[in-house]
Amino acid sequence: MTQPNAMSRTDASIIPATLNLVRDMGLQGFIVPQADEFQGEYISENNMRLRWLTNFTGSAGMAVIYQDKIHLFVDGRYTLQAGQQIDPAFVSVHHYRDPSYTEWMALNVKSGDKIGYDPRLHSIANVQSLKKALTKIDVEAVGVKENPIDRLWLDRPDPPNAPVSHHDIAFTGCSSDDKISNMAKSLNMSGADAMVLHEMNAIAWTFNIRGGDTAYTPLTQGFALLHANGNADLFVSPEKFSDETITQLGNRTVLRDISDFPEKLDDVGKKGLKVSLDKNSVTDWTLSRLKKAGAEILFEEDPTRLGRARKNKTEITGAHAAHKRDAVAMIRFLKWLDDTAPSGTLSEIDVADRIEAFRREGDHFRELSFPTIAGSGANGAIVHYQATAQSNRKLDRDSLLLLDSGAQYSDGTTDITRTLPIGKPASEICEHFTLVLKGHIAIASARFPVGTSGGQLDALARQYLWRDGLNYDHGTGHGVGSYLGVHEGPQRLAAGSTVSFEPGMIISNEPGLYLPDQYGIRIESLLVVKKSDKGTQSRPFLEFEPLTLVPVDRRLIVTEMLDEHERNWLNAYHRLIVEAVFDLLEDEDRKWLATMCAPLLC
Amino acid sequence: MTQPNAMSRTDASIIPATLNLVRDMGLQGFIVPQADEFQGEYISENNMRLRWLTNFTGSAGMAVIYQDKIHLFVDGRYTLQAGQQIDPAFVSVHHYRDPSYTEWMALNVKSGDKIGYDPRLHSIANVQSLKKALTKIDVEAVGVKENPIDRLWLDRPDPPNAPVSHHDIAFTGCSSDDKISNMAKSLNMSGADAMVLHEMNAIAWTFNIRGGDTAYTPLTQGFALLHANGNADLFVSPEKFSDETITQLGNRTVLRDISDFPEKLDDVGKKGLKVSLDKNSVTDWTLSRLKKAGAEILFEEDPTRLGRARKNKTEITGAHAAHKRDAVAMIRFLKWLDDTAPSGTLSEIDVADRIEAFRREGDHFRELSFPTIAGSGANGAIVHYQATAQSNRKLDRDSLLLLDSGAQYSDGTTDITRTLPIGKPASEICEHFTLVLKGHIAIASARFPVGTSGGQLDALARQYLWRDGLNYDHGTGHGVGSYLGVHEGPQRLAAGSTVSFEPGMIISNEPGLYLPDQYGIRIESLLVVKKSDKGTQSRPFLEFEPLTLVPVDRRLIVTEMLDEHERNWLNAYHRLIVEAVFDLLEDEDRKWLATMCAPLLC
Repeated sequence: MTQPNAMSRTDASIIPATLNLVRDMGLQGFIVPQADEFQGEYISENNMRLRWLTNFTGSAGMAVIYQDKIHLFVDGRYTLQAGQQIDPAFVSVHHYRDPSYTEWMALNVKSGDKIGYDPRLHSIANVQSLKKALTKIDVEAVGVKENPIDRLWLDRPDPPNAPVSHHDIAFTGCSSDDKISNMAKSLNMSGADAMVLHEMNAIAWTFNIRGGDTAYTPLTQGFALLHANGNADLFVSPEKFSDETITQLGNRTVLRDISDFPEKLDDVGKKGLKVSLDKNSVTDWTLSRLKKAGAEILFEEDPTRLGRARKNKTEITGAHAAHKRDAVAMIRFLKWLDDTAPSGTLSEIDVADRIEAFRREGDHFRELSFPTIAGSGANGAIVHYQATAQSNRKLDRDSLLLLDSGAQYSDGTTDITRTLPIGKPASEICEHFTLVLKGHIAIASARFPVGTSGGQLDALARQYLWRDGLNYDHGTGHGVGSYLGVHEGPQRLAAGSTVSFEPGMIISNEPGLYLPDQYGIRIESLLVVKKSDKGTQSRPFLEFEPLTLVPVDRRLIVTEMLDEHERNWLNAYHRLIVEAVFDLLEDEDRKWLATMCAPLLC
Repeated sequence: MTQPNAMSRTDASIIPATLNLVRDMGLQGFIVPQADEFQGEYISENNMRLRWLTNFTGSAGMAVIYQDKIHLFVDGRYTLQAGQQIDPAFVSVHHYRDPSYTEWMALNVKSGDKIGYDPRLHSIANVQSLKKALTKIDVEAVGVKENPIDRLWLDRPDPPNAPVSHHDIAFTGCSSDDKISNMAKSLNMSGADAMVLHEMNAIAWTFNIRGGDTAYTPLTQGFALLHANGNADLFVSPEKFSDETITQLGNRTVLRDISDFPEKLDDVGKKGLKVSLDKNSVTDWTLSRLKKAGAEILFEEDPTRLGRARKNKTEITGAHAAHKRDAVAMIRFLKWLDDTAPSGTLSEIDVADRIEAFRREGDHFRELSFPTIAGSGANGAIVHYQATAQSNRKLDRDSLLLLDSGAQYSDGTTDITRTLPIGKPASEICEHFTLVLKGHIAIASARFPVGTSGGQLDALARQYLWRDGLNYDHGTGHGVGSYLGVHEGPQRLAAGSTVSFEPGMIISNEPGLYLPDQYGIRIESLLVVKKSDKGTQSRPFLEFEPLTLVPVDRRLIVTEMLDEHERNWLNAYHRLIVEAVFDLLEDEDRKWLATMCAPLLC
């Protein structure tokens, strides 16, 4: 991960200067999202405008500059942190819901006002809903030519410039020429002449390239234009490419400098071509540029989303291999933890460092897939906890350690959470753990008809917690890329998700329970969707196959709370782990694994 | 129920005459829905245009007249029946999905064609989606002034004219004056001057009136206009009212003849008023009339939908009382069935007649709430089976009888399905029954956070069937009115339903399993939503309370397949039944009930 450079706000006049500039632009307000023109999950240092302005360092947020104040909207995990980081003289912190920032504006912005936004930083859908909300109160949303922050930000870092590498067909299972050709077919079917890709994950997947411009995900900043004739323009700074990597782009792709992108959009527009855009990943800026140049616009879902989600045979084989390697690292770590924790000296950061070190020894290891979450006791109850020098604590005795971690391997992306006993946790803790486990098993062992979505299955994971009036405030699962984003849609296991599961899709299964100031529990494994033998041709069924191969800690299970189906599932899962990784372990670790995977009896 | 009069198509020239007339109107096609201007579930005889034209007698369907053919779209339960009833020389039968009638038109109708529809028979939403589909293929949808069928249908019956009665506040718990006043408040909040009600259920509820114009549901044909000043115009033929019933309408309502409705819409339009319409229950005709007269239109959900769904204390008390009475009838029937079935002489119609007779003896009984479904053996596998003289069969030995029935009482509407053993069904049948029961219990015993929808809970009922590759092709539950429609939204227990449950909502819980040509299983009880003690103020939870009080047949349960939670739930449910109805039964029936409700042991 790139380290934040010294950019924290030292000049006290930054906020007044920004407020003045916004006013000078003839605006009463301006919106500053935590986003860049590539619309991805992680943004690069040079795009951290929200941090520059407010000093808030969280990963998600949205600021509304209005009159002489900055209103910062953050979600529940960041309200405390934001309050500590911002200057209360200028900034007020709001929870991002009740009201949302648009609802807040509807209540607080005066009719007749003009609110600016930088069209490079907002998706088309985002601007549409912003304009819809503001029109109702007679407020104009104005897309600005130059972002006022960019004008004031003198020590702004350069854009990242990490080298790009070719991602081999041994890992992708499909050449970029074939992918581009398939997308050209779908363009022809919808009657469009071209499509724009903004999302870095889509570009990495389509062109079989991986980069280093963002942390935790091997992406490179750029854009692409795919044409119905089967050719593609890739807009990425050519200095990121070696001669060999350029050759490996294949026959359909022309590499162009990222600075040529606007001009190329104009060319497309001047020809009056019909261009397909995804409202959620293409920016308002690109839409306006195309429209102005004369293009006809067709809104369609980015076809790479389903393409990336439906893993092919090579990617599934790779995912299994990566998860075996990841399991070896996790099992070695767990054995080490059992040996070392009783000394009472281990801290959360020690734990995070250790599991990273074991992972680094694995073949094809590239980097972590996200910052390791090692939360002891009450820290485990903070869903997106990340230990810092300030928060770091020694592992609590007779409590839980929640460890959520994962890695990027060339053949697959991993993401696993195990909740571990330190000492002997109280029986109530074990009962809560078992309720979460029952939900985890309900998902892991689910069969369901073709056409079923994650919105339908999500409650299976919650039903046992719900019976006791308990719940968790996050989705049950997310999609995962193949040496790509650890959070990739479109499928999700969450209320409201209407995307049907399809064979080859990877999904996390991670129910949890968080008792503030006490402890947190989460049990997360990755699963891959496959056809079920229980279905028939006229009534096809799907089921999940485990990718993650790490035992669930039996010392936290209240066996009597599991029914026969659940015990059978757990025993079969543990047998599968032994079969898959036993031979890859040293003697000591084998013994530990055999004990942890022994059948759980009634 | 009103009996069908002799209207079956005897004149062979009806179809050619209709085709000619459509052509003479300058149209290439015309759409004939199974619907009338009141947009309800049941339609009156004089509106059965689809039956007049095609001879198809099913309750749901849609015909597209195109060129020299009629294309009849029906759902799975009607494809066989439709094929037997129609004249294949003129009519082809299509399954209503794959393709839908609009998709079929997109594939088959020539661009440039004009397709007519009667705007009185289609909701606004329906016409919007029709026009959207047809515009894509350059086909014009033309709203006609006169329905060609009405011109040709000489022996068309008169509209129904059943008397209207006042529904007492002892049953409704809320005066119509108060309901109208509440709706006026919501009109004022949305800034509308008036709202139109088309749906008969909405009118019956708002004005606390019940009628007899449709079968199984006590509705009267009419429309209403509610004004922001708190007054209301009710458009129903005044001859349906006694002087007393008119007085009971309260102080806010003016009764007007139904024939005055169009003129009153014009008045509203001429004043330039802003009118709130529900797209799904107001017709395209009403929208056009208002627009033409100058009204401003605001699309909003019919506020009576949630008002009807959230039962007040009086309605909930009434529902419990009605279900007690219904349970007495069911228990007497079940005892009688056990005594009588072994003779081997009983037919499905005998069964339906008998349960109806027991129900008729109960206080406040008004009519059945839908045609009784008594399906023996393979007939039980037909989801909406209704025994006719032709299909009627003696109860199969060593098989199942599926009995789905219900009644309208002044204090509540009932709907119950029990699946009953005739003789000794094979063990596989009992295993299937137990899988369905496990799903039924998962819903009945569910707790869930406030904000949870039926789309989230539906899979709880299916999970055990799904594990074996089994499923049922209908929703798990529907809302129920209070001496009103036995199917009333907006809440549903079904994939895709996003309406949150709220205290006071009634929902059916009816998982099933249907093996074609073998047998059908369904276990249905009504539940009412209430606050759960397990929740906290900051984390409120809801749960279901049983309304239906009839034992689940223990002779079909494989006890070992139930876990402790499920056994406990069933035993508690059976205890509740005994407590509630034991005193209301004769000695013989008490003995039977005690045996059927004895605790089920492990």
